[in-house]
Amino acid sequence: MTDLVEIREVGLRDGLQLVKEVLATEVKLEWCRLQADCNFREMEVTSFVPPSVIPQFADSAEVLAGARTIKDMRAAVLVPNLKWGLRALDHGAEKITFVLSVSERHNQANVRRSTDQSISEFAQLVKERDSRGSKSSVALSAAMATTFGCCFEGDVAESRVYQVVEEVLKAGCDELNMCDTVGFGNPVQVKRMLSEILKQAGEIPVAAHFHDTRGMGLANAVAAVEAGVRRFDSSLGGLGGCPFATGASGNIATEDCVYLMENLGLTTGVDLGGMLAVRAKMDQWLPNEPLEGKLLRAGAATNFRGN
Amino acid sequence: MTDLVEIREVGLRDGLQLVKEVLATEVKLEWCRLQADCNFREMEVTSFVPPSVIPQFADSAEVLAGARTIKDMRAAVLVPNLKWGLRALDHGAEKITFVLSVSERHNQANVRRSTDQSISEFAQLVKERDSRGSKSSVALSAAMATTFGCCFEGDVAESRVYQVVEEVLKAGCDELNMCDTVGFGNPVQVKRMLSEILKQAGEIPVAAHFHDTRGMGLANAVAAVEAGVRRFDSSLGGLGGCPFATGASGNIATEDCVYLMENLGLTTGVDLGGMLAVRAKMDQWLPNEPLEGKLLRAGAATNFRGN
Repeated sequence: MTDLVEIREVGLRDGLQLVKEVLATEVKLEWCRLQADCNFREMEVTSFVPPSVIPQFADSAEVLAGARTIKDMRAAVLVPNLKWGLRALDHGAEKITFVLSVSERHNQANVRRSTDQSISEFAQLVKERDSRGSKSSVALSAAMATTFGCCFEGDVAESRVYQVVEEVLKAGCDELNMCDTVGFGNPVQVKRMLSEILKQAGEIPVAAHFHDTRGMGLANAVAAVEAGVRRFDSSLGGLGGCPFATGASGNIATEDCVYLMENLGLTTGVDLGGMLAVRAKMDQWLPNEPLEGKLLRAGAATNFRGN
Repeated sequence: MTDLVEIREVGLRDGLQLVKEVLATEVKLEWCRLQADCNFREMEVTSFVPPSVIPQFADSAEVLAGARTIKDMRAAVLVPNLKWGLRALDHGAEKITFVLSVSERHNQANVRRSTDQSISEFAQLVKERDSRGSKSSVALSAAMATTFGCCFEGDVAESRVYQVVEEVLKAGCDELNMCDTVGFGNPVQVKRMLSEILKQAGEIPVAAHFHDTRGMGLANAVAAVEAGVRRFDSSLGGLGGCPFATGASGNIATEDCVYLMENLGLTTGVDLGGMLAVRAKMDQWLPNEPLEGKLLRAGAATNFRGN
């Protein structure tokens, strides 16, 4: 198994989606550029969603256009349905993360349709992308929210998770992204479920997306590594949350995730010092947001051998 | 292997040792009583150290005397050498944690003697305890600081760790407590080393003590569980640090550790809601201390099946 691991920054999307103060487009693009300079090869830079729902993303087309010009950095965007997925295709997204929740109630609350309807729209998006001749240039990822539990429904049946995985694989996804949207997952469950999903996925890569809502985010990431996952979403400073999860804190912090992975003997390629400098800038960009993450304060251990 | 796990509260010792504002003796004892009511069966309630070095612990004899009266709660104290170990015996400590660092420079900085000298004093303390007829009533734990790395020396040779383990086992310790004092450990290392140490220890229990300095505290605890460890130190609200480690944050947070263990399918016996109520009181007791830990804010997941 490879010792390369891809850390995908989602701070500009998952991180910002609950931030009330709208960050200027130019600052968003500065963040993108600076983090790309630290060898982040993919960033989810915005959401294509109705601006009335999330004003923070009213500039999504401009952010995507700017991010596309950054060398060696794949500009991904999140979409909630087919309509916005087509817009993302129109605007030249290099990767589209299509979010759907395994649990019905979360999917209804988040994107106002049934899970089956979301799967069907995802399948249509794949066909549309292919018919435009963009199969090789635009990756379509199925982000499966509430894979490890749901704030509305509690347990989510594992059999249903595997069924939805089968269906999005059949629809032609280029990646599965298994999301612990509300921080219900634990390492035993994560290892068991991701081992199963990796088997289902075969050659299709499986990513994992953890929130640190109850402190288990990095422990879950270790469990995912042990299962064989080598792609992780994270958010610089742990920015983020879920609009439906009480007290939800954000994604696992990128800086702590990178440091963890390097300590596990994996290679992220990330420039650690450069990344911490970007993280420090966030305090100026978002002075009113409480940020998480330990590494900025503590620094790397003196015997750290990574980047 | 048992599914029972003991969570030992060290907030009153490791947590308070860097807190400048001296907490009133009565408040310390209220903390003890409240947490014992939540089924914590052992707490490290103070340090027996020179008051000139740590004024916070000038009331150690009073705190120990008060804590001893709490039913079904073992009152442990930390000591830095033989002299203070004898005082702890004199004052009726129910368990003594004797701290020594595997790395020479940390031991010199912390207790001003060589590691071998510390081991020798620990052996003398065992003999003295036995000669007083207290073998069955006073447990002696060897707390091995810098087991997983040292802020002064960087790497600590694993062979040296195992050698010190052998020597304190030979000296007659009742428990080994392997400490990641400065937050240098990682899950791969923790699992490898603790598996080895558990073999060395045989029937003698092995505890683990992690700091969350670089965000890996709970991931290290999972690794320790996988190795077979069933005793953990933690500090309510993640209070604590190390005087020699830059930016050191505290121990793993008790509330998050208990919640993790229950999620792993282990049983702590702890009353989760009661514990969170004690944690909430810390904001009044220590209004100027930044506290960590996620569970107070997020609450247990709606599908949580533990206590």
